[in-house]
Formats: sequence, structure tokens, C-alpha cells
Amino acid sequence: MRTTVFCGISLDGFIARSDGTIDFLESFDPAVTPEGTPDDLGFGDLVASVDAMVMGRNTFDFVADSGFDWPYGDLPVIVLTNRPLELPAGLDEVVETASVEPAELLAVLSSRFVEHVYLDGGFVVQSFLRAGLVDELILTTVPMLVGQGIPLFGSLEHDQRFALVESRAASNGFVQSRYHREP
Amino acid sequence: MRTTVFCGISLDGFIARSDGTIDFLESFDPAVTPEGTPDDLGFGDLVASVDAMVMGRNTFDFVADSGFDWPYGDLPVIVLTNRPLELPAGLDEVVETASVEPAELLAVLSSRFVEHVYLDGGFVVQSFLRAGLVDELILTTVPMLVGQGIPLFGSLEHDQRFALVESRAASNGFVQSRYHREP
Repeated sequence: MRTTVFCGISLDGFIARSDGTIDFLESFDPAVTPEGTPDDLGFGDLVASVDAMVMGRNTFDFVADSGFDWPYGDLPVIVLTNRPLELPAGLDEVVETASVEPAELLAVLSSRFVEHVYLDGGFVVQSFLRAGLVDELILTTVPMLVGQGIPLFGSLEHDQRFALVESRAASNGFVQSRYHREP
Repeated sequence: MRTTVFCGISLDGFIARSDGTIDFLESFDPAVTPEGTPDDLGFGDLVASVDAMVMGRNTFDFVADSGFDWPYGDLPVIVLTNRPLELPAGLDEVVETASVEPAELLAVLSSRFVEHVYLDGGFVVQSFLRAGLVDELILTTVPMLVGQGIPLFGSLEHDQRFALVESRAASNGFVQSRYHREP
């Protein structure tokens, strides 16, 4: 079982503005490969490689209310929330809610033979990091300072050391770095 | 006249721990070039290219009290501080204090024919960014989360967009990205 955080952040470390909007991530030209084809920065590969996704309630509400198609296909999604969630038609087959600690959630997923989990959203990332349960960070830094918003990282009791696996600049100025947690 | 921020930050955006120490920056192997020679990540080139440096009082105290040689040679250094500063022998010829706003300081430096200023320290970087007076950011990200400390970035009233000039990974896992402010 391993966990991967995959997200875009502003240069000053925010994943969204205070109201949850991510216009600053979307204000740049789409990345293209050296051959000129669309470059999704590994998002498709990640979604194809994971067996489940965990997101917070704010992230769910933002994605569900975005007006865009649900971007995660039939990937099983667990929404961590304490509040009742009425699932839109079509999503009730792929989305479920839970209100448990990170370690307990991973134990449940492991019992379902889940091997690779995609973590998204500030609350989820911060709580899994505090529990020492983030194995991989794939961060795409957007060249913009937004000054305030929802930070990706929160306070930690101890240092956590990672190893850089690779880093690359995309055509639009995004810098994506991939890290693995050091034992 | 242009300004450059050059600094190392943790993966979660801190330039130092709360007490000013930067052990986490120093806990990695030194970077080396592909040829195996020491790689200073452009620090020497930067110091050689600037005519003056501006730092905050905390940064000055930390560097002056570090027990190491003064790392900036005979580069003129302005310490922004409201408190009296007794300069150690030898430093009084290169260091002066000031207590003015960023724009006023740059006007004074410009009148002295300074063309390129190196900005260092959280307080200085944040106040120059709030004033829209940072032209270049050279950030070296260290693969460690420290959880709390002195952040490089602070709140801003408006977005500030930058353009990525280059990004590279050093042998020790540091990722250095260079950005220019967009007009």
C-alpha cells in the first residue's frame, strides 16, 4: 500500500484561494510536450495507477459543483467528512463517505486489496502528513503568488525528509517535482 | 535597477526554523556538478553580479553570530532595522543600517549608482513583494518538510505573476527555479 499526493500549488504554497477557486492554476497556457501535443503532467498516468482516491469534503464539493464532468472516471473515491453527503446520481456508485483517521482508512482500503491511493485536498494531505502516511509527493508549482488561500502544508511535529525522484519544467512554466518519503 | 531574491526554502516554504536556525538546509550532502566539483547553485555568481544587499535584522544577527566568516565579502550591505546596531569591527565599513520603506531604499541606492540588489530574509522579501519590487526570484527547494518556522512568503493584496526562466535539479535533490516578474 502506498499513497501519492498529486496537486498544483502556487509559488507561495496554496492549492486554492480561500473560497476554494483555482483560477490561478487555470490562468496559464496548457502545457504541451516538445512534440506539441497536450501534456497532462502525468495526471492520466496517476489516475490509471491508483486503486482509490481520498479527498476532503471541500474538495469534493468544489469538484462536484464545478459544472465539469467528474474527472476521476470509475475510480473509487472516499470523501472524508463528518457531515451527511447527498450524492448526485451517477456518483453514488463510485463515491462513499468516511469519518476516520488516516491509518484506519488505509487499513480498511488495504483489506479491500487497494494498493495505491491518490490523496487530494489540503485537509487530507495535512492529516496524512501529520500521521506520516504520505509516501509520494508530486507537486506542480505554478509561477504565481496569490498571497492567501488554502495552504497545501500545515504544521508538523517532526521534520519529514523526502528524496527527489525527478523534476521537470513544463512548456508553460510549471515546475513538477516528484518526491518519495525517506524511511 | 533590479532586485533578486536568492534563498533556500523547505518544501513547505520556510527559510528558517522559528529560532532562525537553518540546520535543515545544511543537513543534505553538498551539491556537486556532473563533473564532481562543488556546485554553489549560483550563489557566487549572484554575489558577484550585485552592487548591494538588503537584509533584515534577524538575518543579520543570525549571520553575524553564526561563528562563520562574513559570507558577503566587501559587498555593501544595508540592514533594515529600527533598533540600534553595534557593528563588529571590520563590518562597519561594509554594513549600514536603514529604517525606510522599500521604494525609498531603492531610490537611495539608485542615487548611489547601484544597479542590482540582492534581497535576503523573510521580512525583507515579504515587504519588497508587497511593494511589487521583487524582479527576480531564485528559489532553491530542499526536500524536507519542517512543519513550522519563518516563511519566505507572506500575504499579498494582489496576485503577482512570474515567468519561469529556468529550473534544474542539483545532485543532492535541491530544485532551483529562477523566475522573473511579469510586467
